[in-house]
Amino acid sequence: MTRADDSAVRDLAERLVSGDTRALARAISLVENDAPEAQALLSACFPHTGNALRIGVTGAPGAGKSTLVDRLARGWREAQRKVGIIAVDPTSPFTGGAILGDRIRMQERLGDDGLYVRSMATRGALGGLARASADVAQVIEASGKDIVLIETVGVGQDEIDIARLADVTIVVLVPGMGDDVQSLKAGIMEIADIFVINKSDREGADRVEKEIRAMQSFAQTHAEWIPPVVRTVGTSGEGIPALSDAIEQMQQWLMTCGRLESRRKSCWRVRIEEMVRQALLKEARAHGLSAEDLTLFAESVTAKQTNPYTLVPKLVAEVFHDRRRLP
Amino acid sequence: MTRADDSAVRDLAERLVSGDTRALARAISLVENDAPEAQALLSACFPHTGNALRIGVTGAPGAGKSTLVDRLARGWREAQRKVGIIAVDPTSPFTGGAILGDRIRMQERLGDDGLYVRSMATRGALGGLARASADVAQVIEASGKDIVLIETVGVGQDEIDIARLADVTIVVLVPGMGDDVQSLKAGIMEIADIFVINKSDREGADRVEKEIRAMQSFAQTHAEWIPPVVRTVGTSGEGIPALSDAIEQMQQWLMTCGRLESRRKSCWRVRIEEMVRQALLKEARAHGLSAEDLTLFAESVTAKQTNPYTLVPKLVAEVFHDRRRLP
Repeated sequence: MTRADDSAVRDLAERLVSGDTRALARAISLVENDAPEAQALLSACFPHTGNALRIGVTGAPGAGKSTLVDRLARGWREAQRKVGIIAVDPTSPFTGGAILGDRIRMQERLGDDGLYVRSMATRGALGGLARASADVAQVIEASGKDIVLIETVGVGQDEIDIARLADVTIVVLVPGMGDDVQSLKAGIMEIADIFVINKSDREGADRVEKEIRAMQSFAQTHAEWIPPVVRTVGTSGEGIPALSDAIEQMQQWLMTCGRLESRRKSCWRVRIEEMVRQALLKEARAHGLSAEDLTLFAESVTAKQTNPYTLVPKLVAEVFHDRRRLP
Repeated sequence: MTRADDSAVRDLAERLVSGDTRALARAISLVENDAPEAQALLSACFPHTGNALRIGVTGAPGAGKSTLVDRLARGWREAQRKVGIIAVDPTSPFTGGAILGDRIRMQERLGDDGLYVRSMATRGALGGLARASADVAQVIEASGKDIVLIETVGVGQDEIDIARLADVTIVVLVPGMGDDVQSLKAGIMEIADIFVINKSDREGADRVEKEIRAMQSFAQTHAEWIPPVVRTVGTSGEGIPALSDAIEQMQQWLMTCGRLESRRKSCWRVRIEEMVRQALLKEARAHGLSAEDLTLFAESVTAKQTNPYTLVPKLVAEVFHDRRRLP
């Protein structure tokens, strides 16, 4: 980056910190696309972060997460709390874009400076989405939001990784999902701080709650905080105040005995490692590991002309060797 | 590694290549645990790989994948084909170990040198499981198996990553899963070479097939190969010959026009990049990025004493700096 770029980044950061929504949108795009300015921008945003409550909301597609998130956001706005929402959107040709459409409508309906909604598409790279959404959350936080909601679709490893970055994780279930709780991806039950049974006017809500309770008694992953089970009907708003209260209670619990700090510490530990990994890979890409090189290596390995297990140590040594020769 | 280690590794590789099952089991453990000998072992195995057909089997928990895999394996064994099976096992406290138990029983029941079954647990690290299972598949292949089956539980990103490493990917569905096909994680439909509707004696098999067909007509991801839909009843063995035939046909199709080579090339491209990433991280761990260091950094970042976006470039520069000073 040139010095001019550097001052442009500082200017952009200042504008977004002061609440300029267009600057915020532009900054998110830079971070999401991993633009050359992204690191400097995130660095400038960092001092303005740490005060918002981050809430992750996850659950199977069709569980009604968007409606819940909308309802929660409206309630907080009425209480004058500023809210940012990141909706992590799968890019499957079958479902892609659905959430984005909903959210654009929501944004328009509210026409409210204290609410910012952004959709993010699934990245191809391993761990890319978790990293990108964490960085975007930082930027949104820096813009002065009190609450940042991160909504993911699905209950796979991606979602677990994303949810781990939140202070409070809400897992949304619905009655009548066939195998119900058992069908959830291993690991998703363990990350829940609050369970929501949405569409709880449907038959089977009792059974879902019973299953959650049975797993809790078996797992005992949370020694002190026993995740409450809240029943909601997102479309009518029933149970939203109770959910809001549960979040409030969880926040109170986190605020005591350094629990929030300890959670955030483990979160940063994971993220720093991931950031280092990414930085090392960039270094490698700049030194003999371009996309074209990799394709050639793969060709040669497939043809059994090159042994990948001897190739890779050689490549890595070369990355360091080239770096050594740089001025 | 010392010279003695090196010769021990060569000895172990020779024994497993010649069909020694105990050597195979030991080699897999070394690879799975990423032992210091792992790279040398994989390097020694590499020349003995490339001839087996790799089949990935994925689908929601409870879809009956293990039963299908067992039935397929028995059929191949009757035809004198040697089979290796990797069952990727989730480590959730709720479900962990179930598959492993089943598989130990299967192994005992058959008492057959031409069949090797191994369970693998979910790794914590991002992408770790895909890498580890691909390496284990290499070792099993080197032991002279004609077919290597990789069975995963669930349909998340992990499973997609693992399935991408196979020559043929089978996605197993069952009727009456609630949202059925729509509830599948985005991306899983696109990787299927063969769809299986298992438990097809249940009500709803027609509907599942119709949904798959509808998605196929919409997606058209496979221009030439249209994934067939095979109905099975794993418990009775119904449809297993048809599934076997479908695999055979896919293999024939792959064998023409360099399709198998082209698939394996893209697979190696992904894997080489991942291997480089891993090697770089190891380098970093050896130079100021130990677990303890990371914890200290995370503490300092949480306390807002350190900005992670300036810390990481500094850490990465130090990795190279330290490496430069080494003899």
